[in-house]
Amino acid sequence: MKLLKVDTIQQVLDKMEYQFRDIKLSTEEINILEVVGRTAAEEILSQYNIPDFNRSTVDGYAIVASDTFGVTDSIPVFLDVIGQVEMGKATNIVINKGQAAYVPTGGMVPSGADAVIMIEYIEEMDNKTIAAYSATAPGENIIRIGDDVAAGASLIHKGKLIKPQDIGAMAAAGIRQINVYEKPRVAVISTGDEIADPFGDIEAGEIRDINTYTLSAMLEEMGAAVTVRKVIKDEFELLRSNVEAALENNHIVIISGGSSVGTKDVTAKVIDCLGEPGVFVHGMAVKPGKPTIIGKAKGRALFGLPGHPVSAVMVFKVLVGHFIAKLMNRDHFSLQIPAECSTNVHSSPGKETFQMVELQQIGNGYLAVPLHGKSGAISLVSKAHGFVRIPHNKEGISKGEIVMVEVL
Amino acid sequence: MKLLKVDTIQQVLDKMEYQFRDIKLSTEEINILEVVGRTAAEEILSQYNIPDFNRSTVDGYAIVASDTFGVTDSIPVFLDVIGQVEMGKATNIVINKGQAAYVPTGGMVPSGADAVIMIEYIEEMDNKTIAAYSATAPGENIIRIGDDVAAGASLIHKGKLIKPQDIGAMAAAGIRQINVYEKPRVAVISTGDEIADPFGDIEAGEIRDINTYTLSAMLEEMGAAVTVRKVIKDEFELLRSNVEAALENNHIVIISGGSSVGTKDVTAKVIDCLGEPGVFVHGMAVKPGKPTIIGKAKGRALFGLPGHPVSAVMVFKVLVGHFIAKLMNRDHFSLQIPAECSTNVHSSPGKETFQMVELQQIGNGYLAVPLHGKSGAISLVSKAHGFVRIPHNKEGISKGEIVMVEVL
Repeated sequence: MKLLKVDTIQQVLDKMEYQFRDIKLSTEEINILEVVGRTAAEEILSQYNIPDFNRSTVDGYAIVASDTFGVTDSIPVFLDVIGQVEMGKATNIVINKGQAAYVPTGGMVPSGADAVIMIEYIEEMDNKTIAAYSATAPGENIIRIGDDVAAGASLIHKGKLIKPQDIGAMAAAGIRQINVYEKPRVAVISTGDEIADPFGDIEAGEIRDINTYTLSAMLEEMGAAVTVRKVIKDEFELLRSNVEAALENNHIVIISGGSSVGTKDVTAKVIDCLGEPGVFVHGMAVKPGKPTIIGKAKGRALFGLPGHPVSAVMVFKVLVGHFIAKLMNRDHFSLQIPAECSTNVHSSPGKETFQMVELQQIGNGYLAVPLHGKSGAISLVSKAHGFVRIPHNKEGISKGEIVMVEVL
Repeated sequence: MKLLKVDTIQQVLDKMEYQFRDIKLSTEEINILEVVGRTAAEEILSQYNIPDFNRSTVDGYAIVASDTFGVTDSIPVFLDVIGQVEMGKATNIVINKGQAAYVPTGGMVPSGADAVIMIEYIEEMDNKTIAAYSATAPGENIIRIGDDVAAGASLIHKGKLIKPQDIGAMAAAGIRQINVYEKPRVAVISTGDEIADPFGDIEAGEIRDINTYTLSAMLEEMGAAVTVRKVIKDEFELLRSNVEAALENNHIVIISGGSSVGTKDVTAKVIDCLGEPGVFVHGMAVKPGKPTIIGKAKGRALFGLPGHPVSAVMVFKVLVGHFIAKLMNRDHFSLQIPAECSTNVHSSPGKETFQMVELQQIGNGYLAVPLHGKSGAISLVSKAHGFVRIPHNKEGISKGEIVMVEVL
């Protein structure tokens, strides 16, 4: 029984690291308006100082700070107003001791001035004179050139998944397009004589395909491009020719179903006949997800995922998701939610266990409620907010224990 | 000073609820392959039983369970093999007491049988006889008709944000398209004489536009359609004509910048002149985000967000995000991360305070590290993983306190 020689997840990840070391993504230049959800393939440096002039953060008067030293709300200093700065315009005003100029919020601070005193703290005596009633420190209410981002400073690191707020930062820094990794191309094939296209009529004994649709949507959410979606009968030659065709132009081929030790198991044989090294993982010490197959042929990664929808989703997250993140050098701030487990959870000794959970907010925290049931495969996957990993050397989870929930 | 009569966030949300009560989205039918990230506008019911036949969960023999009662690994029962079920096919085999038929994982359990015994627990004596070595309970290793999802049962509730795993559930239930809310249409206008298009050359005293790009990307991430992206000078007539045009075909118009009490504040005047009721919120007891304006004209929602990027992002999340979720009846399982605060954080009495934080994983939990600095507006927004709300009646956060981080 080949399935008995199973690897731990760490062994599987190590083998993947080694076998897939030469699978690389190319990069492409993309306009920053299209770049949310893509991954930076280079470090992005600011082309400019932000701001590139000394900028006032308040409506007030640009002054020489030392003029106000010792000033109180009963002993003001009187300053000569020598002009006002227009918003969005350069100014050639120069402030000397004893002088002031009006500056609006966001306006350029004239040279010579080293602080801005807020209008709340001054009184206009006449057109040409203000009384200042507050001691103002040098630098107060000014953002200096490059204070926010200095020219040449790193804005986005290589491997960063670009979020909406990064677009604004790049826009501010005058960056129009950046290098991102191409989308990994993935073929998703479901196999099994009982699996039918969900959009056709089905015969008695058949079930509608779930995995092709779930896995494709998860791949697209991760930033991959799904180029093939197919349901194929468990016939060696049919599966072989379809997988071989899919290897042509994809980085990854996922075959779901057909990986139990049943009579119709052909996935491993197909992978083995397509080229070296073929199957290098056959069985994994996890629950669920034991009948997982991983191979390589013609320089492409092949994953044989279990047919059971819950197992397929979790093995996908843990192995395929991991590999795709690696391909993109993603630093992978993968969001996990600390939560208190609502009940005891048993695990199988010697196996890493994945437990689907639903999250319920309680005060400043979450309760993780395990979802069970042999029967509720589809309902489980749709209802779960995430899953918890129980390492192979840990005996279950106790009620009240804090666990990290990986979000689905 | 109109800005002194400010509302609390709860007062603002209550006013929005009342004023925007008649703004509605229409719905559209979408193929399930295109539906991730959209929001269900109806409850989705399963059209079929899943599975729609009694299904084996193992490779084994379909039997009458009572035949095995009292059986042990030394005292087997012998059963007559009367056939085998083919994968993906209906079967007309009928099992009586003393009989068995082979069924593969996922195969149809013949009528008469009420359990499946795993092949691990039987021995094939000859073609026509097996010895069964394990007592098997009725129902064991069978998923019954409708066990996973019963025909007519609810698969997706109204207001659910559709995730990848829901696609599989709908495919399994034979659903091809569903009703979702149309994308709310939003115009994003930045105003300010110092704001320049980031893709052109800029003059001294100008800064490149951030908010249009950040807000547009956040809107698209939330599932809205951004129809207008513009930078407009702070001139009443120019802003008025552009906002009026934007009201024509959008649910929401966002104007960022131009909402301080500075000389050039025209946003509130523009909103007030476009129709009843005009501005109904001018100033909010939050930090940052005080100079927020909300109004309604011609049946559309208008938001005047602060120009400062950090403020704009947070007010957007708390008000505009809230309103969009409401428009779509989203139940809004908005992901918050419990985290331990790394330092004391001060807040302003009487104001709700938003504090940007970075998350650092520590063991089975996170540390929330507050991000500060008047100057680092752009770097802050890009670096922050989320923000923490400090209610107006709470005096800051103590080091070590558990806070809920709203993810950006």
